[in-house]
Amino acid sequence: MQTADVTRQLARWIVDYPAASLPQPVRREGLRTVVNWLGCAIGGSPHETVDRALDAVRLFSGPAQATIFGRGREVDALHAALLNGIASHVLDYDDTHLKTIIHPAGPVASAAFAAAELMPINGADLLTAIILGIEAECRIGNCIYPDHYDRGWHITGTAGVFGAAAAVGRLLGLDSRKMTWALGIAATQSSGLREMFGTMCKSLHPGRAAQNGTMAAFLARSGFDSSERSIEAPRGFANVLSTKQDYGEILEGLGERWETSLNTYKPFACGIVIHPTIDGCQQIRTEIGDAVHRIAKVELTTHPLVLELTGKRTPKTGLEGKFSVYHSAAVALLHGDGTPSAFTDAIVADPAVIALRDRVMATADRAMPEESVRIVVTLDDGTVIERHIRRALGSVERPLSDAQLDEKFRGSSNPVLGEAVTDDVLATVWRLPTLPSINGLAALTIPARN
Amino acid sequence: MQTADVTRQLARWIVDYPAASLPQPVRREGLRTVVNWLGCAIGGSPHETVDRALDAVRLFSGPAQATIFGRGREVDALHAALLNGIASHVLDYDDTHLKTIIHPAGPVASAAFAAAELMPINGADLLTAIILGIEAECRIGNCIYPDHYDRGWHITGTAGVFGAAAAVGRLLGLDSRKMTWALGIAATQSSGLREMFGTMCKSLHPGRAAQNGTMAAFLARSGFDSSERSIEAPRGFANVLSTKQDYGEILEGLGERWETSLNTYKPFACGIVIHPTIDGCQQIRTEIGDAVHRIAKVELTTHPLVLELTGKRTPKTGLEGKFSVYHSAAVALLHGDGTPSAFTDAIVADPAVIALRDRVMATADRAMPEESVRIVVTLDDGTVIERHIRRALGSVERPLSDAQLDEKFRGSSNPVLGEAVTDDVLATVWRLPTLPSINGLAALTIPARN
Repeated sequence: MQTADVTRQLARWIVDYPAASLPQPVRREGLRTVVNWLGCAIGGSPHETVDRALDAVRLFSGPAQATIFGRGREVDALHAALLNGIASHVLDYDDTHLKTIIHPAGPVASAAFAAAELMPINGADLLTAIILGIEAECRIGNCIYPDHYDRGWHITGTAGVFGAAAAVGRLLGLDSRKMTWALGIAATQSSGLREMFGTMCKSLHPGRAAQNGTMAAFLARSGFDSSERSIEAPRGFANVLSTKQDYGEILEGLGERWETSLNTYKPFACGIVIHPTIDGCQQIRTEIGDAVHRIAKVELTTHPLVLELTGKRTPKTGLEGKFSVYHSAAVALLHGDGTPSAFTDAIVADPAVIALRDRVMATADRAMPEESVRIVVTLDDGTVIERHIRRALGSVERPLSDAQLDEKFRGSSNPVLGEAVTDDVLATVWRLPTLPSINGLAALTIPARN
Repeated sequence: MQTADVTRQLARWIVDYPAASLPQPVRREGLRTVVNWLGCAIGGSPHETVDRALDAVRLFSGPAQATIFGRGREVDALHAALLNGIASHVLDYDDTHLKTIIHPAGPVASAAFAAAELMPINGADLLTAIILGIEAECRIGNCIYPDHYDRGWHITGTAGVFGAAAAVGRLLGLDSRKMTWALGIAATQSSGLREMFGTMCKSLHPGRAAQNGTMAAFLARSGFDSSERSIEAPRGFANVLSTKQDYGEILEGLGERWETSLNTYKPFACGIVIHPTIDGCQQIRTEIGDAVHRIAKVELTTHPLVLELTGKRTPKTGLEGKFSVYHSAAVALLHGDGTPSAFTDAIVADPAVIALRDRVMATADRAMPEESVRIVVTLDDGTVIERHIRRALGSVERPLSDAQLDEKFRGSSNPVLGEAVTDDVLATVWRLPTLPSINGLAALTIPARN
């Protein structure tokens, strides 16, 4: 593998790739990515994490250039990228590139949408830029995953900044030299520690990646230069932040193999390892109906990682509930729910949920794949119901349908914008490739003042 | 060494340390640091690196809250921190903590001054905050140096963001929990690759560290939380970004051993390893006077690292001249100069300088310490003049006097502000500890409109 010129080759491809060549299925998956991301951003927008970030940055904000979806047009484009990136991630409900655990849209779409409100860009060009940004992001992620992640880097932040720079650089029409600089300015800002998981800084990572990548592209446009070998140089990104470097993952099959096609959307608002359990418990609920109130015990068999990450026996808060496979199983059986309403403080403290949760047992078994689960429910009359979930709903093999994406979008957006406006936003975002600009779509997401 | 609580203990010290306890010599060295930094920022302010950064960020800037020294009050405090941090570093003329090669003031003072223009802060409190910020920055640097630097991190960026957060957090009066968060938000933004040396991104690092550290402190004030073990946790800063962690360097002797006291100021506008050569050549010039025009050859004996870093035989530009010990020796002998005017494109192309440069030879010798040089000058009549420089002017052992700092300040500031205004700025900044606010000082640095 020729590694002399990785950054320049990637930059040239981002600049030169003809939009007309984008395969229709890739364009369609890119659109599904945008629909899912926008719903997450609107749904997360009232979260206190967003409140606090906005409270801090409002003092420094420039003109009201771009929309904080679900809130209003009140900050400059850099800060809008930051806040939408935070909001889209804060409910743990966003998209996942399962090969790297990158959440691709948070950094890339948050950056590209904010930049697009600054200039005359139509929806089709915006979508192309987002898809190319996701390619840059996920390919750079593939190059260094898993060593980079294992060392402690939150890869959505560290790789996301490249994707944001690429997408905004494409929107700005940078030439390939300036695109190389934009990637370099991104590289030298790449950051985000996994130690922050469980705190507000986890959502800061995609937000700052969006903001910093946007600034990288604008700096490059103004002639601010950087190394042109920022990814592959001995003291560049891949060598400094990872022990593994597979540059073929970045350069091979550009325009043929599409990481965007591998993007997935969470049906449930929690870590991906609990998804098989929720999926299976929902299926059992559908099968047994009211008998969920007569469950004597629930036995789960999972890969050990599932219990390591989500083995919290007695969660006290909604956030802790996301790290409890016991709570998640109980609420899926009792209410059929895995959406954000399954992870509120109130539902975690609900006596009926707690009573069932305490009858859930889990056994770790290395023979069980990480993406699978075996569930055995025993009723008080001795009846046994079993489910073996190999791949959960929302995986590449069992993707959410467009209708399921719509349902998820409504669940996130209805509480913020109401049903009528939500329907309007949803219909409009699906028409993104035909919109002459995105200003109307952005304006639709602003709630009427009370 | 107890490592359970490194971040919390450091945060508590930054919050609680009584300003009245600061030893007078430490306070004095802190003031010298500010004087040197302000001169560098003013001198660097017309540089095209600053022009391009300002061109990019102006579009997004909030209200004109803080001053870009040497330019004007035209951007918000976050962007002023960025631009002053860039300007203070761009001439390679700033301060150096020799134990870690951190340039301490760029991130810390740029952040603290910009924040201080936002609120009623007197000069004494500002100086205290800067000194405490430098302690946080350099102690964290000591903890991980040299492994962290050797791996490829530009430590002025990676450690600088902590110092900026600490200084601004102190100005904001954060309690110790929020200061812990501010350090955590800094940790998860820590970045800057050595691959960027020789490009505009090298100066971006202290600028972004100043900006990101400032934002970390404001986010923490607004209740935006982070891990409270961001430095020492298994997936925290020190473990993810370094193979060496010596937490005693952070916690031991807080308030007794002061890194600020070890700060040094460059008499010459180039990398520190050439300084002994310039110093020695200037001494020889003073000794031989006009005979500099009769030099037949110049023989340097240096540590191999000096030639590795600055062995450029035929520099073409001013920037390349900074990486040529040959050019530096020639211009010091001919003109006695090591200031920014010794590293312009014109002087590097000057035939007289080139003619002497081509008569300079250098020999690497492992027995010669990095901070030393032996210089043998032979005149055309066979006369031999020798100098052995053990420690250059500007080192801890041979610090610049206050008068030499003044001379350096004037050399940087006169071309930007003129002599009369420069004298006024210089007199005012020395009185920092007695100023009721810094707004007057900041305003003085704005050139009259032509």
